[in-house]
Amino acid sequence: MAEASRTTEARRDAVFGRWVVFSPARSRRPTDLKSHNPTNPSPAAGEPRPSCPFCAGRESECAPQIFRVPPDGSLPWRIRVIENLYPALRRDLEPPPAAAPDAEEEEEPGERAVPGFGFHDVVIETPSHDVRLWDLPAEGVRDVLLAYAARVRQLAEHPAVKYVQVFKNHGASAGASMAHSHSQMLGTPFVPPSVTSRLNCMKEVFDRSGNCSLCDFRSKDILISETPNFSAIVPFAASYPFEIWIIPRQHLSYFHEIDQHKALDLGSLLKTMLQKLSKQLNDPPFNFMIHSAPFGLSSSCLPYAHWFLQIVPQLSVIGGFELGSGCYINPVFPEDAAKILRELSCS
Amino acid sequence: MAEASRTTEARRDAVFGRWVVFSPARSRRPTDLKSHNPTNPSPAAGEPRPSCPFCAGRESECAPQIFRVPPDGSLPWRIRVIENLYPALRRDLEPPPAAAPDAEEEEEPGERAVPGFGFHDVVIETPSHDVRLWDLPAEGVRDVLLAYAARVRQLAEHPAVKYVQVFKNHGASAGASMAHSHSQMLGTPFVPPSVTSRLNCMKEVFDRSGNCSLCDFRSKDILISETPNFSAIVPFAASYPFEIWIIPRQHLSYFHEIDQHKALDLGSLLKTMLQKLSKQLNDPPFNFMIHSAPFGLSSSCLPYAHWFLQIVPQLSVIGGFELGSGCYINPVFPEDAAKILRELSCS
Ligand SMILES: Nc1ncnc2c1ncn2[C@@H]1O[C@H](COP(=O)(O)OP(=O)(O)O[C@H]2O[C@H](CO)[C@@H](O)[C@H](O)[C@H]2O)[C@@H](O)[C@H]1O
Ligand SMILES: Nc1ncnc2c1ncn2[C@@H]1O[C@H](COP(=O)(O)OP(=O)(O)O[C@H]2O[C@H](CO)[C@@H](O)[C@H](O)[C@H]2O)[C@@H](O)[C@H]1O
Repeated sequence: MAEASRTTEARRDAVFGRWVVFSPARSRRPTDLKSHNPTNPSPAAGEPRPSCPFCAGRESECAPQIFRVPPDGSLPWRIRVIENLYPALRRDLEPPPAAAPDAEEEEEPGERAVPGFGFHDVVIETPSHDVRLWDLPAEGVRDVLLAYAARVRQLAEHPAVKYVQVFKNHGASAGASMAHSHSQMLGTPFVPPSVTSRLNCMKEVFDRSGNCSLCDFRSKDILISETPNFSAIVPFAASYPFEIWIIPRQHLSYFHEIDQHKALDLGSLLKTMLQKLSKQLNDPPFNFMIHSAPFGLSSSCLPYAHWFLQIVPQLSVIGGFELGSGCYINPVFPEDAAKILRELSCS
Repeated sequence: MAEASRTTEARRDAVFGRWVVFSPARSRRPTDLKSHNPTNPSPAAGEPRPSCPFCAGRESECAPQIFRVPPDGSLPWRIRVIENLYPALRRDLEPPPAAAPDAEEEEEPGERAVPGFGFHDVVIETPSHDVRLWDLPAEGVRDVLLAYAARVRQLAEHPAVKYVQVFKNHGASAGASMAHSHSQMLGTPFVPPSVTSRLNCMKEVFDRSGNCSLCDFRSKDILISETPNFSAIVPFAASYPFEIWIIPRQHLSYFHEIDQHKALDLGSLLKTMLQKLSKQLNDPPFNFMIHSAPFGLSSSCLPYAHWFLQIVPQLSVIGGFELGSGCYINPVFPEDAAKILRELSCS
């Protein structure tokens, strides 16, 4: 690590417009509080989990299935997309009235309450309790990504759904309540706040420079790996140590339009990145999130809307500074994290 | 709890403009992962901590002192404001050149890196290892608040400091690395992202309605307690269960202008709120943050800038949905939390 040679620096990124403080010295501070265990209580291989509703054979204990892979019910399933049994948003409530086509900008600011209409689904990535996403072959990861995309396309049909947040929680410290490998998605009746601020920031950059924030990164120092269709980088102003972004090299606004071929490319790169994090950081808890464009974005916004997948290992707890200011403190410089991950071999 | 009678609802607040999903059903979901221990490993009363540099008698193991209370060195200290030994931002770096008076709006968007100049201080709230902030008498809490304000006033003098984030971490799951009761503040050379988005949201509300978002709340259902100068509420769209905001009843933009009299009022209310949280939630880890206005705000912004103190108990880990969307899921309705906290007696 080039730690000694680098000095404290504040950086702002061109996607979220967030300031991050890079401070190698912070990693040396002592503690007299036992920090919560950052490693994931991963299931022991082969250990039977008779009480897990996501395991093959226990389908009846789950909320209704939406679809399965393969669709042919005479074959065993490899992936199931099901309703969340404890949904945050509920598909059985009255959806909000569809807004007039260009009323969006006009929405009154201030306090508002609407019925909690929406969709909350779970993607069970494998029938086996002890298989992690990156244990699947690249084709298996591809199929999970294609299942996300297929479900997002279904939700996009609903006139009241404005956005779908696809995400994965792995490990208790990343929020997971279920150990069996799965991910989730929420279809919301509003555009979530971070999506709005991301697009606003990318628009500002575009208006000034004529460039898309994510087409435009050039530094080789933050690159981990490249495939024909995707780049994996540690972002220039990463909020978290060893954060990774996987970005389509072509300018594309919507994740859910991905095709088989690109999904295999992405599946293989995602598998490698998760293997690298697992190896380097000893199977850390992590989240990943797909950042796509809200549905029905006007064509004038497409030139700066570029989707990507963000992976965040959860190595420490954030505190009041981050909660209050929205500004993060990261002890590891992106160039150092990228070098480590780039040079790590996984096979 | 009126849980059964309430149905899922999405709410947006008038301060941050964030959507929060209220979903009582979520609190019933099972878990097969041991979630990290949410309770705070609080020090046993009277337990000696010979290795704690924040304890009386170990001042020489700390970074330099900025000031103490009382100032008279022949008396024992009750509060010390010191430099952070592992600062995230460093006072010894070159400050960024002061911007032209009204250049702020013009700042180029996009990637940026600046030296990590700034101030990072620690406020040791008591000389005793086993005394928590709310164990102090109201006058003691007042003096801590006055120490924050005095230090913020000093930092406000520096032309390169744009904002000071005052915050407290209590308990390992709230990020604390030191158990001895303390808080911190960071003086930043930029306006942090959440401060900008808070002011933008409050401006929009003001431009539409002519009202300040925080002067304007009327519902008695979310009120916990009132004093002559402050209201304690569970905000209408609280992101976290049992989140509390303490708001000056008079329209005031800057925390650091607080006087002795109001500081005693606030100290007493803060003490009561921390006691209530401790009693109701069994000494939970928590953070509090003071949300004030950036320095040198133009006078046209003052009518909608209203400072407040936010207390957030850390009862669960957030996951990929929150990280990705900026939207929170809260299983406890603010009206229910406010009722519980209102009716809880502390003495
Ligand atoms: N039999 C069954 N059939 C169908 N679904 C079932 C089921 N049994 C359980 N489920 C659902 O499976 C999901 C498992 O999800 P995760 O483990 O990724 O985290 P969870 O959503 O619990 O919370 C984490 O993620 C959310 C969203 O980021 C955060 O709000 C939260 O704080 C964090 O702990 C749960 O949402 C649960 O409701
Ligand atoms: N002898 C000494 N003299 C002076 N100062 C000393 C000292 N020994 C230790 N310190 C400082 O005391 C502070 C104690 O602070 P806290 O316990 O509130 O959390 P910390 O800042 O470690 O990190 C939490 O808060 C920050 C900010 O929110 C998050 O970035 C982080 O993830 C979270 O764990 C540390 O910042 C440490 O550097």
